[in-house]
Amino acid sequence: MGKLYVIGIGPGGIDHMSLKAQKAIEESNIIVGYTKYIEMVKPLLQNKEIFSTGMRGEENRCKEALDLSKDNVVSLISTGDSGIYGMAGLILEMRKDEEVHVIPGITASSAAGSVVGAPLMHDNCNISLSDLMTPYEDIKKRVKLAAEGDFVISLYNPKSKGRPHYLKECIEIIKEYRKEDIPVAVVKNALREGEEATIVTLKDFNDEIVDMFSIVIVGNSKSYIKDGRFITPRGYNIRGEE
Amino acid sequence: MGKLYVIGIGPGGIDHMSLKAQKAIEESNIIVGYTKYIEMVKPLLQNKEIFSTGMRGEENRCKEALDLSKDNVVSLISTGDSGIYGMAGLILEMRKDEEVHVIPGITASSAAGSVVGAPLMHDNCNISLSDLMTPYEDIKKRVKLAAEGDFVISLYNPKSKGRPHYLKECIEIIKEYRKEDIPVAVVKNALREGEEATIVTLKDFNDEIVDMFSIVIVGNSKSYIKDGRFITPRGYNIRGEE
Repeated sequence: MGKLYVIGIGPGGIDHMSLKAQKAIEESNIIVGYTKYIEMVKPLLQNKEIFSTGMRGEENRCKEALDLSKDNVVSLISTGDSGIYGMAGLILEMRKDEEVHVIPGITASSAAGSVVGAPLMHDNCNISLSDLMTPYEDIKKRVKLAAEGDFVISLYNPKSKGRPHYLKECIEIIKEYRKEDIPVAVVKNALREGEEATIVTLKDFNDEIVDMFSIVIVGNSKSYIKDGRFITPRGYNIRGEE
Repeated sequence: MGKLYVIGIGPGGIDHMSLKAQKAIEESNIIVGYTKYIEMVKPLLQNKEIFSTGMRGEENRCKEALDLSKDNVVSLISTGDSGIYGMAGLILEMRKDEEVHVIPGITASSAAGSVVGAPLMHDNCNISLSDLMTPYEDIKKRVKLAAEGDFVISLYNPKSKGRPHYLKECIEIIKEYRKEDIPVAVVKNALREGEEATIVTLKDFNDEIVDMFSIVIVGNSKSYIKDGRFITPRGYNIRGEE
């Protein structure tokens, strides 16, 4: 009887994975994942059977991992947290009686936040701008309500070729509710090779520097920039005693 | 010249920390943190100077860590992600010219989510019900807008003696926007000693099992329970090809 670990490896590379994730990979004889993610954890993969796949066909990848897990210890890996826009949901939806363990990781907004300072210190939300599975009207509605609620907003999948204008439009929606001097961070490849981070104000934001490997973080009404770092205070009264 | 690492140790214990966090602690000669957090990483603390403090007085703890970091390598530790309701914000607010590095960790909603299944698979938000630094009216407004936007909602600090009714009231607000059969999870001490998890429906939710060590996760309109796991689909069309 085998089992399946659904692992979030964090931002990429070994350093920001949990020990638990590393141990699960060690225990596994088969590793399944998108080619680029497999590459990121290569030092851990000596003597493992590898099933790497392209980005599309997630359902097939999940089916394969579930089938293999009947007689093997299998790790299905993806970046970030396996439970946030990761593979854990689809696996549990498709699961019949296979033994499945979800192992969390550091999600992309946490990784990106740490690179630019402490933007996520107060109530915050993650919104994906991908319309592959969600109507764009619903996405825009969420952006509007999050802006109105003064959440710090992390935008996942902010841009792709098929929808080049979504990000710009969503930033315009946010501008209706936020002052133009609050910070916006664009972090590309956070905490992995090729990391690039930019902090600007909402007013000066230009979506041209954003690509599909970026996370965009928009501050709340109290966020500010100090010494090049993006800071959101924990509350509305920093002098208050906790 | 010293430096300060602001470290999120994740849910607690060594297993869910990142290797990066472990290395930073190893490199440090002084460790600062709340007594209970120090206890969680004790195996890493041989030959370290320890400054453990009570829960209150966070500003003093930060000041101490910053002062010590002028001539020492200091790790200031807290659970979860240091950048989400953690210590990174206050440190960067108070920082003068000290060298500060923020090291992220697995935040409590990710940890709690992994215990009950995959509740955070789609757009989601974190809201703290603590009113120490934020007016309760603002908190309720956020809960309302998050409910209206169909976000999966993770409630941090859901209950304390000083505000026993907030959670119940916020759940009532959510009920105005969600069907009563969607799942709600209460996870106490996620991924650490004393872990307890319960999944109920919004209709059957009873706030009596919730305490200050719990995270409460409320599903979106598509969330459901299958074989005892709390699943939120990735989108509104699971058959769509990505």
